Amino acid sequence: MKTYKESVTSGGRFGRLVLKALAVLLLVHGFSVGLHAAEMPAGKWVDLTHDFSSETIYWPTGEGFKLETVFEGMTDKGYFYEAKKYRAEEHGGTHIDASVHFAEGKETVDEIPLDRLTGPAVVIDVSERAMKNPDYLVSVEDITGWEKVNGVIPGGTIVLLNTGYGRYWPDRAKYMGTDEKGPEAVKDLHFPGLGPEAAKWLVDNRKVKAVGIDTASIDYGQSKLFETHRILSKNSVPGFENVANLDELPAKGALVFALPMKIKGGSGGPLRIIALVPESR
Amino acid sequence: MKTYKESVTSGGRFGRLVLKALAVLLLVHGFSVGLHAAEMPAGKWVDLTHDFSSETIYWPTGEGFKLETVFEGMTDKGYFYEAKKYRAEEHGGTHIDASVHFAEGKETVDEIPLDRLTGPAVVIDVSERAMKNPDYLVSVEDITGWEKVNGVIPGGTIVLLNTGYGRYWPDRAKYMGTDEKGPEAVKDLHFPGLGPEAAKWLVDNRKVKAVGIDTASIDYGQSKLFETHRILSKNSVPGFENVANLDELPAKGALVFALPMKIKGGSGGPLRIIALVPESR
Repeated sequence: MKTYKESVTSGGRFGRLVLKALAVLLLVHGFSVGLHAAEMPAGKWVDLTHDFSSETIYWPTGEGFKLETVFEGMTDKGYFYEAKKYRAEEHGGTHIDASVHFAEGKETVDEIPLDRLTGPAVVIDVSERAMKNPDYLVSVEDITGWEKVNGVIPGGTIVLLNTGYGRYWPDRAKYMGTDEKGPEAVKDLHFPGLGPEAAKWLVDNRKVKAVGIDTASIDYGQSKLFETHRILSKNSVPGFENVANLDELPAKGALVFALPMKIKGGSGGPLRIIALVPESR
Repeated sequence: MKTYKESVTSGGRFGRLVLKALAVLLLVHGFSVGLHAAEMPAGKWVDLTHDFSSETIYWPTGEGFKLETVFEGMTDKGYFYEAKKYRAEEHGGTHIDASVHFAEGKETVDEIPLDRLTGPAVVIDVSERAMKNPDYLVSVEDITGWEKVNGVIPGGTIVLLNTGYGRYWPDRAKYMGTDEKGPEAVKDLHFPGLGPEAAKWLVDNRKVKAVGIDTASIDYGQSKLFETHRILSKNSVPGFENVANLDELPAKGALVFALPMKIKGGSGGPLRIIALVPESR
């Protein structure tokens, strides 16, 4: 019969091997969670931003995005140089709504905490229903239906709504129901949005960080009182509008980074929104 | 004498315990590197962006940033609403230089790959020398000196230069040597920059993703031929200018996310640049 010590020594060879593997894993793990350095999670970048050009879609009352060349060509000192200037309304193209857009005294765009603009995202795909009905309102049932398949949306999630209308960009008539401009065209806007009840439900029951959509507004085109905007604004939940490429994201598992131009006192502004999609899905 | 099976079974108790620990770690580790979901590395956000306002510093020849209110107040439908419009030159405030800024036919701002704009960053602090000399040029020796302490800068790093001048923002006279405007003021610009030799060295020997600085330009104020811009542009290395709060970052270990406004055909544009600083440093 072996002594206890012999038993541990011989039978423990496997244990030592496992210990070594453990040490290696701890080292790798340590780096990946930032004991020494923050490490970028593995994945591929997806740009959720439409570019700004003369084609960029603005509200019918807006003048839109203008880019003007200041200088382009060879300088008299013999080197090439190019520079431009730009102008636009805050609320067009892929942009953010700060809470002050619809709630007096709430956060301006420069005041939104970075933690609200970055984090795990879920994508709720309502495109099958919304593509058949340009006045579609995303409902509480759409969200709870998503949860039945994918699990409860954790607190602090960025919720992105895929209505399918992103595929029409930059065709204004298809994207928003009219390509007319001016205040008279507003009554002809038709595109899906987030219903006020669902907005309230997401804020109250899921404590979402932010909400994004692939249409011109988080309220649907036929909205008269912008109730969804007002609910989100009152609760300091920023809205991302005219978001692109939502069909390239998984239902859950992506990280979103949504960084607006830091306009002091702005009610919103151009947003560069990107997602890191994990590789091994 | 114990059989082999007995030996593994009895002596292996410790092994089994370690195996269990291993399984738990694998699970945790799996999540953190994105086998199931990309997870945000632990850390705190630092905003490296100055805001855009009438105080924002532009080149003396620029008109600067203008914000105009389109509507602010109660609408006739009984809800509060606020919206503005903005205009500016591409190259002022915290902004990015796309390669086409100084190299004909190279990337415009919307064409810069997201992978170049995101990743691990190092901060090279030259403030002790630069604060004494507003015409200071960051040298190869500054970089190799940093490496002696912190290790070789890995390929694909975002290099940020802390000259100390960020503390003067938005005092134009202190920040850039003059608060005069117009083409005549350009000759009076004095602020540190990255020397052309060091720029070439970073591109050739360290394959950097991007370079940022806390002054008005990556070339120093007295530059006449903008050689550092031209070296970086030729090599598709974007420059970040007027970067803020570099003294809040560690020498290494932070992750940077530098997202410019996506101006189609732009030679640059407003940049929102943020850093994730690991918690346990």
